[in-house]
Amino acid sequence: MSSHLRHNEGAAAALPIQNIPTPQTVDYDWVLVSGFIVILTQVGFAFIGAGSVRYKNSQSVVIKVFLGLFLTVLIWWLFGYGFSFGDDFQTKFMGGTKLGGAKWEVTAYGNDYTNFVFRASGAAVGTAILAGAAAERMTFLGWSIFTILYSGFIYAGLTHWTLAAGWLSTLGYKDFSGAGVVFYAAGVAGLIMTVLLKPRKARFDNGTTLDFNRHSPLYIGFGSLLVFAGWLFFNGGIVSQGAKSQYTQGLVAVNTLIAGATGGFFSYVIRHIQYGTSNLAALSRGVVCGLVAVSAAADDMKPWTAFLYGAIAALIYSFLAKVMPAAHIDDPVEVVPVYFGSGFVGIFLSALFDTKAGAFYGFGAKLLGKQLLGLLIIFAWVTFFTLIILLALKGFGILRIDAETENAGIDKAQCLGEAIVFANQVDEVPLVQQTELGNLRSSQLGSGLRSGFK
Amino acid sequence: MSSHLRHNEGAAAALPIQNIPTPQTVDYDWVLVSGFIVILTQVGFAFIGAGSVRYKNSQSVVIKVFLGLFLTVLIWWLFGYGFSFGDDFQTKFMGGTKLGGAKWEVTAYGNDYTNFVFRASGAAVGTAILAGAAAERMTFLGWSIFTILYSGFIYAGLTHWTLAAGWLSTLGYKDFSGAGVVFYAAGVAGLIMTVLLKPRKARFDNGTTLDFNRHSPLYIGFGSLLVFAGWLFFNGGIVSQGAKSQYTQGLVAVNTLIAGATGGFFSYVIRHIQYGTSNLAALSRGVVCGLVAVSAAADDMKPWTAFLYGAIAALIYSFLAKVMPAAHIDDPVEVVPVYFGSGFVGIFLSALFDTKAGAFYGFGAKLLGKQLLGLLIIFAWVTFFTLIILLALKGFGILRIDAETENAGIDKAQCLGEAIVFANQVDEVPLVQQTELGNLRSSQLGSGLRSGFK
Amino acid sequence: MSSHLRHNEGAAAALPIQNIPTPQTVDYDWVLVSGFIVILTQVGFAFIGAGSVRYKNSQSVVIKVFLGLFLTVLIWWLFGYGFSFGDDFQTKFMGGTKLGGAKWEVTAYGNDYTNFVFRASGAAVGTAILAGAAAERMTFLGWSIFTILYSGFIYAGLTHWTLAAGWLSTLGYKDFSGAGVVFYAAGVAGLIMTVLLKPRKARFDNGTTLDFNRHSPLYIGFGSLLVFAGWLFFNGGIVSQGAKSQYTQGLVAVNTLIAGATGGFFSYVIRHIQYGTSNLAALSRGVVCGLVAVSAAADDMKPWTAFLYGAIAALIYSFLAKVMPAAHIDDPVEVVPVYFGSGFVGIFLSALFDTKAGAFYGFGAKLLGKQLLGLLIIFAWVTFFTLIILLALKGFGILRIDAETENAGIDKAQCLGEAIVFANQVDEVPLVQQTELGNLRSSQLGSGLRSGFK
Repeated sequence: MSSHLRHNEGAAAALPIQNIPTPQTVDYDWVLVSGFIVILTQVGFAFIGAGSVRYKNSQSVVIKVFLGLFLTVLIWWLFGYGFSFGDDFQTKFMGGTKLGGAKWEVTAYGNDYTNFVFRASGAAVGTAILAGAAAERMTFLGWSIFTILYSGFIYAGLTHWTLAAGWLSTLGYKDFSGAGVVFYAAGVAGLIMTVLLKPRKARFDNGTTLDFNRHSPLYIGFGSLLVFAGWLFFNGGIVSQGAKSQYTQGLVAVNTLIAGATGGFFSYVIRHIQYGTSNLAALSRGVVCGLVAVSAAADDMKPWTAFLYGAIAALIYSFLAKVMPAAHIDDPVEVVPVYFGSGFVGIFLSALFDTKAGAFYGFGAKLLGKQLLGLLIIFAWVTFFTLIILLALKGFGILRIDAETENAGIDKAQCLGEAIVFANQVDEVPLVQQTELGNLRSSQLGSGLRSGFK
Repeated sequence: MSSHLRHNEGAAAALPIQNIPTPQTVDYDWVLVSGFIVILTQVGFAFIGAGSVRYKNSQSVVIKVFLGLFLTVLIWWLFGYGFSFGDDFQTKFMGGTKLGGAKWEVTAYGNDYTNFVFRASGAAVGTAILAGAAAERMTFLGWSIFTILYSGFIYAGLTHWTLAAGWLSTLGYKDFSGAGVVFYAAGVAGLIMTVLLKPRKARFDNGTTLDFNRHSPLYIGFGSLLVFAGWLFFNGGIVSQGAKSQYTQGLVAVNTLIAGATGGFFSYVIRHIQYGTSNLAALSRGVVCGLVAVSAAADDMKPWTAFLYGAIAALIYSFLAKVMPAAHIDDPVEVVPVYFGSGFVGIFLSALFDTKAGAFYGFGAKLLGKQLLGLLIIFAWVTFFTLIILLALKGFGILRIDAETENAGIDKAQCLGEAIVFANQVDEVPLVQQTELGNLRSSQLGSGLRSGFK
Repeated sequence: MSSHLRHNEGAAAALPIQNIPTPQTVDYDWVLVSGFIVILTQVGFAFIGAGSVRYKNSQSVVIKVFLGLFLTVLIWWLFGYGFSFGDDFQTKFMGGTKLGGAKWEVTAYGNDYTNFVFRASGAAVGTAILAGAAAERMTFLGWSIFTILYSGFIYAGLTHWTLAAGWLSTLGYKDFSGAGVVFYAAGVAGLIMTVLLKPRKARFDNGTTLDFNRHSPLYIGFGSLLVFAGWLFFNGGIVSQGAKSQYTQGLVAVNTLIAGATGGFFSYVIRHIQYGTSNLAALSRGVVCGLVAVSAAADDMKPWTAFLYGAIAALIYSFLAKVMPAAHIDDPVEVVPVYFGSGFVGIFLSALFDTKAGAFYGFGAKLLGKQLLGLLIIFAWVTFFTLIILLALKGFGILRIDAETENAGIDKAQCLGEAIVFANQVDEVPLVQQTELGNLRSSQLGSGLRSGFK
């Protein structure tokens, strides 16, 4: 059992005796610091998103990351936290108390305030990832509506089932920090989204050799390094006893470090073998893949298993990253290869390598069945609701940006200008101002922020 | 009473009995980690500054952030910490011991070393903000002199009055982590500064349509996300008992998160209603506005109140951001709308919504009077000394950069070249070197770093 | 004695009675948080590297930082941690147990998992620095091989001698967090490396005035601010008792803060006196110099001594930064002036100013001898093996990139295109797609990421 910070004592009482976790005093400093740094990883996801798309849409991705964060925090305060960590009155389906901050409690074994910070920031990781799937194509309005429903309902439900005292974790499905519920689920939603949004204009047209350059591999590198460091807190915070659980706390950190390093290194090597290039984007994706996979069971794993998780996640990523464009699925930030692929790898491998329940440690195939069931349930649940929401958005005509916006780029068309402006570097009024020249120069510079600094 | 880490037992003894805070053991890990990450927010302020100004001055803003950090740390070690947290011999005006690290103590209830780290990094937040008010116009020398006097004296004095055991907090003025003393004060100083510095050349000239493009909304976004995460530590560290004060520690974090998210979201929506654009800069400012406002009383507030603080701060920001340019006050990094506006909002609203003393909780208008008095005192104190300092700098001719520097940009004129150079991307000596060509190419490239890498 | 987290009880037993450190309970939250944030500093080093080189190689530097991190983590898990913190069977030379995670222990006085995270991330700081020395010239293969041997053997050995229970620390050589073993050693290796790699093509040719512009002083500034904050954790984590050692923990933080600020400020002022410019790169380097120097003895030092360390480190840096290009040693990221210089300064000055053993505190010149011996030993050990490795790489022809790659830039030649691409900003298919135009435009854009997003 990997669930921590259970607040749902009603449901816990219904567990068979041997499954009741002994309540453990929580190290709130540790949990809060972890939650705060998980918010910091939003900077990393913003860098990754802005670097992965074409320059003309880089600003719009960061806006989507922000909107995702804002709305996740607010909807989790109003509903999501209650749905996931409220009392489910023994239904094990979805909580119904603790909505809008009502009756949040503080005891030695649970603190709703602290738990909210850690869990809401975890939820916001999911939306930051999906901002990549929505990139370059989805409208801001559509994205805002989707993100509210995704994190407030779809994700909150899954969280209750797996990370709180819901039916999947009661059944024995194992997911340490969310390889399934956060990352694989985001990968599934990203797949539906990127398919329904359809490829960027002319992306797979035969005749065209139009380049679809990423804005900046450098940004992807910076962002992924930041996410790497942040993930140590993301996984660490799950060990809510902090230093009181010395062994687990340290082990989780070691496994996270090794899986991230291995994923990155193998992804680099595989890409080099495939194409002969040293690809910073692929290497960066590989780091995240290793981190996603290891999140399935970082507490019940030996370091060499973490190595294996990282290597296999990198392999599956490399395969999917090649297959997806060949199948004409356009996924600019590679959400599907990274999160769908590695989430699956992590949950699947833990059925084999979990030291407390895995097949390779003599516990038989029982966990395998539960893990596959979990993956199936998550797939069905996320696909069903994501489809409904996105098709509704499509029906209202607010799913995809119009062709003109797409051609010009969302930044110029809707965000008051470009993401980075060098215009003023050589162009300035002379000491004695010449208005005519100023006018001329200004008109050449084209659009951009007007003097009002709107 | 919101004051923590009181070292001034003399003054505390003079308080009426019911106001003496019980000394509480401090969680030094928590306070230090908070202080360290507050230093990290300097990266965020550097990004915000560099992104908010015109490209040609982006490097110079970061230099100003650095100089502000350096000089604040050094002057706080020599004077500022003693002025604010030293013994004031019952004057309640300004401390006089603990200068230059002398007689710093370590007890279970206070540790001057730890407290210095947290408080000096808080002081440096004020200077990082003011670097934005000085941007594009102030000389490095003028800025250095101002920053020493501001953080070492003006701010240190205010800190003694409000965050240590000074007269304002004794009176009952409430300021949790510095909405008034750090942010509103910086807003006041920024207003004086930006008015005295006068607008950037041709900024409000009727004839000209010269663009005043921000260098990069993207940078503003990255920086503000980083500042958001850092603020959780900035407010968190004030709860110096850390996990020993479970409820307050968690509550402060929840309120900070909700206020930041609300401020950002409302700012985005309001700007969209105003101009129909999706503005990353406005959205980013809104986050900071919510954070500033909530810092007034994050410990004595319910989450829905934090929501209200964020929303109202965003509203006032949107108003000021429109009014300021109309009034021909040129504030490139929007220091006044963000910090003056939201600091005021936070201190004012806490008179109404403070759960322990606010009017809406049945405590009458007493706190309102004290809060307004505090705002007035801060305004008068900061304005008086800022005016004297800046007018003196003007008298010596070191307030504003000369016209030539302003036209060329501070970066090119004084900082050895541009902030970002792409020149080498296409231009390189051929395999067989042709010196003449090299010369030619080099001269076309214009200024920049010479081979000496000075 | 500055060694903490000793796991080598065998060796400890051989110490003379008065040198046996009392085992102290370790604060694992503190150590882990420190280690995690030290991983975050990799973002800072990536920014510094990418900003310090020419644009055309900026992406390749970040790849080198990543490869260094990956391989250091993996080799430390397999060998490095065992070599440095395993049992050396009283040889005091190099450990031989705890390889590959075998027999890692968890007790109240030591936790190999936690210790690994902190120590491996410290080792990765060394490789991140050396990525700068390898910049713009070394092949990825050569760099990968070197980094494995450097961190897995050269650095791990030094760590055993000085930070674990090895012969140098037994002798009385003092190095708090690695001014010698991490930074001075990296400076020595960087010197050998940059000399053997030879200058960038045409760097010191008489006839040419070809510019060698750094890509971005702005990036150097962002990165150095981030490294500054991270260093507070790097030094803080060494005080492994965390808050249980209140005085030392706080003192180390104060000294680190003051030394960094002083180093940066003096470096700024000196460069201004030398050339009349306000140099963001020099100022940023100065911060790191102060941090390196203070790392020699941050626990046994008064704040004014930290000030002195920072000032002298800045002075020596400024001297070396001028001398190196004059001596035609090309060091694009200034690894030698910063790390060789300041590491030397720190270790040397601590012989004078260490409050527990320094000459100025009446303890005579004994420590001076030990410190100089330590510097000599580190120099000889690092030089010897670095030379062998690099000459072997040269023999196999994988030391330096070929001339064509150097001319085009590593990014374009090997990394699938440029670091930052703005191409799509104005160039897009029209609403009715015209393939011919697309082709034309694409060919003009030149290389870059192809539509396959390899």
